[in-house]
Amino acid sequence: MDTIDGMTSALQERMPLKTCFGCGAENAHGLQLKTHWTGAEGVCHFQPKPHMHAAPGTLNGGIIATLIDCHCISTAMAHLYHREGREFGSEPGIWCVTASMNVEYKRPTPMDGPVELRARVVNEEIDRGRVTVACTLSAAGKERALGTVVAVRVRV
Amino acid sequence: MDTIDGMTSALQERMPLKTCFGCGAENAHGLQLKTHWTGAEGVCHFQPKPHMHAAPGTLNGGIIATLIDCHCISTAMAHLYHREGREFGSEPGIWCVTASMNVEYKRPTPMDGPVELRARVVNEEIDRGRVTVACTLSAAGKERALGTVVAVRVRV
Repeated sequence: MDTIDGMTSALQERMPLKTCFGCGAENAHGLQLKTHWTGAEGVCHFQPKPHMHAAPGTLNGGIIATLIDCHCISTAMAHLYHREGREFGSEPGIWCVTASMNVEYKRPTPMDGPVELRARVVNEEIDRGRVTVACTLSAAGKERALGTVVAVRVRV
Repeated sequence: MDTIDGMTSALQERMPLKTCFGCGAENAHGLQLKTHWTGAEGVCHFQPKPHMHAAPGTLNGGIIATLIDCHCISTAMAHLYHREGREFGSEPGIWCVTASMNVEYKRPTPMDGPVELRARVVNEEIDRGRVTVACTLSAAGKERALGTVVAVRVRV
């Protein structure tokens, strides 16, 4: 798999769906987040834009949830391709949707610098096509939020 | 309290914070959601914009989480003012932030018509300043997502 500094190029560049609000590179009004896969976890660096605040200077909780959701789903799909020994994005496509998401907001998230998300699969129910992904969101050297996403593989 | 058809005018019109990404009326790039308080629950009708999709035609899960988050926090604050027998927005101000949020995505949410959110307080720990709010998100006559938000009262 094509790698840069041990990580893949962004998974979103290899998805046919390019316009998702959270991660579509072609959605001019979306977040355009990018997930890089290390082989064990998904990593995302994201610079918030000024309008994405809750109180001024603090990242909105819904934006945080959107980042966690899309990043964890991309990580779940990368994990499934990896387990099958296949290139990400190869046919037949592997797709997941979100069954549930939980976010714990531990402390306010400053937005003058980038946030970092790190996500990894913590549980898998192969028979049910369900993958649980745990994610940290950090900024300025501290964990700000913890997310858990249950992803379900779907036929498309 | 000023009411229209048994509901208050939007709570967000009576908040000093006008620029939150989820509910700020003056955030041109935000969702500008509006919460109306019936005295027992918070009600929100929201028309998604075309760029807010996941797959085309289906509302993005992060947008759903953002709606649930801001609507439940506004509902929690309305509940606290109501319990104290005070007008929403009166001084000293009552403010809440999100401690945690859980969203279950039951089925895809179409976005060609409005979505409706209904939220109510289901638990309160007065000593800890914590209020739990449960929320349904419906569209085209069916429940699409269920949210639970734990709101914490903060001093500002």
